[in-house]
Amino acid sequence: MTSTAHPSDILLHERDARGVHRLTLNSPSTFNTLGEAMLAALQNAFVQVEQDADARLVVLGAAGKAFCAGHNLKEMRAQPELNYYQKLFAQCTRMMLSIQSLPVPVIARVQGVATAAGCQLVAQCDLAVAAQGVQFGVNGIDVGLFCATPSVPLVRNMPAKQAMEMLLTGGFISADEACQRGLINRVAPVSELDAQVNTLVDAILAKPREAVRLGKALFYKQREMGIEAAYQLAGQTMACNMVHEVAQEGVQAFIEKRNPAWKP
Amino acid sequence: MTSTAHPSDILLHERDARGVHRLTLNSPSTFNTLGEAMLAALQNAFVQVEQDADARLVVLGAAGKAFCAGHNLKEMRAQPELNYYQKLFAQCTRMMLSIQSLPVPVIARVQGVATAAGCQLVAQCDLAVAAQGVQFGVNGIDVGLFCATPSVPLVRNMPAKQAMEMLLTGGFISADEACQRGLINRVAPVSELDAQVNTLVDAILAKPREAVRLGKALFYKQREMGIEAAYQLAGQTMACNMVHEVAQEGVQAFIEKRNPAWKP
Amino acid sequence: MTSTAHPSDILLHERDARGVHRLTLNSPSTFNTLGEAMLAALQNAFVQVEQDADARLVVLGAAGKAFCAGHNLKEMRAQPELNYYQKLFAQCTRMMLSIQSLPVPVIARVQGVATAAGCQLVAQCDLAVAAQGVQFGVNGIDVGLFCATPSVPLVRNMPAKQAMEMLLTGGFISADEACQRGLINRVAPVSELDAQVNTLVDAILAKPREAVRLGKALFYKQREMGIEAAYQLAGQTMACNMVHEVAQEGVQAFIEKRNPAWKP
Repeated sequence: MTSTAHPSDILLHERDARGVHRLTLNSPSTFNTLGEAMLAALQNAFVQVEQDADARLVVLGAAGKAFCAGHNLKEMRAQPELNYYQKLFAQCTRMMLSIQSLPVPVIARVQGVATAAGCQLVAQCDLAVAAQGVQFGVNGIDVGLFCATPSVPLVRNMPAKQAMEMLLTGGFISADEACQRGLINRVAPVSELDAQVNTLVDAILAKPREAVRLGKALFYKQREMGIEAAYQLAGQTMACNMVHEVAQEGVQAFIEKRNPAWKP
Repeated sequence: MTSTAHPSDILLHERDARGVHRLTLNSPSTFNTLGEAMLAALQNAFVQVEQDADARLVVLGAAGKAFCAGHNLKEMRAQPELNYYQKLFAQCTRMMLSIQSLPVPVIARVQGVATAAGCQLVAQCDLAVAAQGVQFGVNGIDVGLFCATPSVPLVRNMPAKQAMEMLLTGGFISADEACQRGLINRVAPVSELDAQVNTLVDAILAKPREAVRLGKALFYKQREMGIEAAYQLAGQTMACNMVHEVAQEGVQAFIEKRNPAWKP
Repeated sequence: MTSTAHPSDILLHERDARGVHRLTLNSPSTFNTLGEAMLAALQNAFVQVEQDADARLVVLGAAGKAFCAGHNLKEMRAQPELNYYQKLFAQCTRMMLSIQSLPVPVIARVQGVATAAGCQLVAQCDLAVAAQGVQFGVNGIDVGLFCATPSVPLVRNMPAKQAMEMLLTGGFISADEACQRGLINRVAPVSELDAQVNTLVDAILAKPREAVRLGKALFYKQREMGIEAAYQLAGQTMACNMVHEVAQEGVQAFIEKRNPAWKP
């Protein structure tokens, strides 16, 4: 296991021998807010993952009581200029969209409260597991700032009226409610949070990287298309996947009733 | 509190000192059907809300046993002409879309059965609270008239197969089912219906009007876009919201650990 | 009742006097995989349904332990050419989209496990009823082949993160979970599966064919549009439906408090 960060860094970055990158928001005293430095650190980490040809997964977690409390309001208040805010939200959006465009799945490991852009971060991940007791909110409206960018992945991950209520009232929902509504995949007792995350990690590591890469990219693209165009792209993707050696070997192994012998 | 309608009017319209407009469908003998007169009265009321610079919210309720039984079938049968129906559905659509384009949230207070365009009315509101025992249906198909326009907000507020079953079979769902599926936000015992509505009202009144206005408009626009365009619009909206005095004051108050001093 | 297939056929096709076409995937030894012959048989059956002016419904079921185990992997492995796979997925897509474009509703009767393209088949139907104990998965990833085409109807019928988990991990969900998430409409004990399907059949047969046809087509078209265009198309559809004799008679019957006298 290699670590490319010092313990004092605001973002810890470990990569194990299997290609699992574990990123940990590590600014507990600011509740891991997404200040400029944290946004830059996340962007930088995603670039490293993208450049790692053997990367398989990202697990995005956090240290301290909060998972992430959204933007850094002190930093924002200190520069009350439209131009600054435009750049800041563009920077944040670039980071959020990097999660979707990465060739490997990103799993949110949510150990504490996720608010505003912190809730957006969870919504934007491919999969999410939360500890029991965690709460989720998009409560920028409490300070007069509607959670506009968080609303983008939110309404793509839970029913519209439930998203609207959270956005307009600033109200929180529990991990169980978040799970029922589709915002997260699983809820686990705190003591079993890592075990639940690792169940997903192990399941995905057992699949070939190339099929996961093709599939993740296809999933988000086809979702925005009309169903006929979506099927056309999906059919092309599946044909390309099928001629690839991983599917040829996987299918052959299935026929021979043995485990596939994929290169690690 | 001012009232701009006589008690005999088919639509009661009260506006309190806080800017809450309470509209009450008031034609119990017709089950509050959306005849031409009711549609015009609703359109007129929404225009008044839009022109009220201090409006904050609309609560849309109804008098009698039914919330709304949809279109007025007697009126429709009396004029069996394509041109008439085209105008009627265009008038109804204009009213429904006004709910979405209003600068303030619209909360449905559903005290009785909501069928066909009555169910559409609930689906089209931003938020909805229903009394226990209320049932929802899009049962035009029972008289040979598929609920085409109701299907528009329905499939945007509940899973597709569940919407399709209601549309094809004319079957009803309970308030609890409507809540689980996303059609409404909350279910309350009849005696607590107003308390539940008022919880939402009070929560939203505590936020600044400008942030709510920007946010509601953004929410519906970005939802129809691809995720990249959606994020771009959301980022711009949030930057504009952030330079506004309500967010500057809200964030400053947050930093100083005091309540925001927003103008009422 | 007429049957256009011999019992040995891979697809049984019965049509009763009411216009209900019952198709039964009948290759239990292959777990009803969608090989070329099965795809062609389904396409052919849907063409027959489309040409039957008095068709009212399709019930799509299966014989044996499995509902459908997806593509025929042996057949696919035997022809490892891009061109072959492109044709195969195009053939499958054409069949899947035929379900949506048919003028009558298609109800999946799911008596056994539905995996990969078998799960896609369920998702693509208008309505679905499953027996308790049935499991659903899109597990192509287990053999290195991401379920790209199944992801198209899947993400249009259940929340995104739940769909993504199934696609990335190959994990299965129970009939109850499928129902909660929106993938299917109802779950029934095995002994009551047909009764539940027939409840839907009888409800839909009681409605006029023309209104069902207009409505089904409108539903899927408007769903892909922005809300304003969707309303415009829906309003036109509803006006056309309203001038049709079935709605004129249905509404007249409603006014006269009698049952509609529709032609069978």
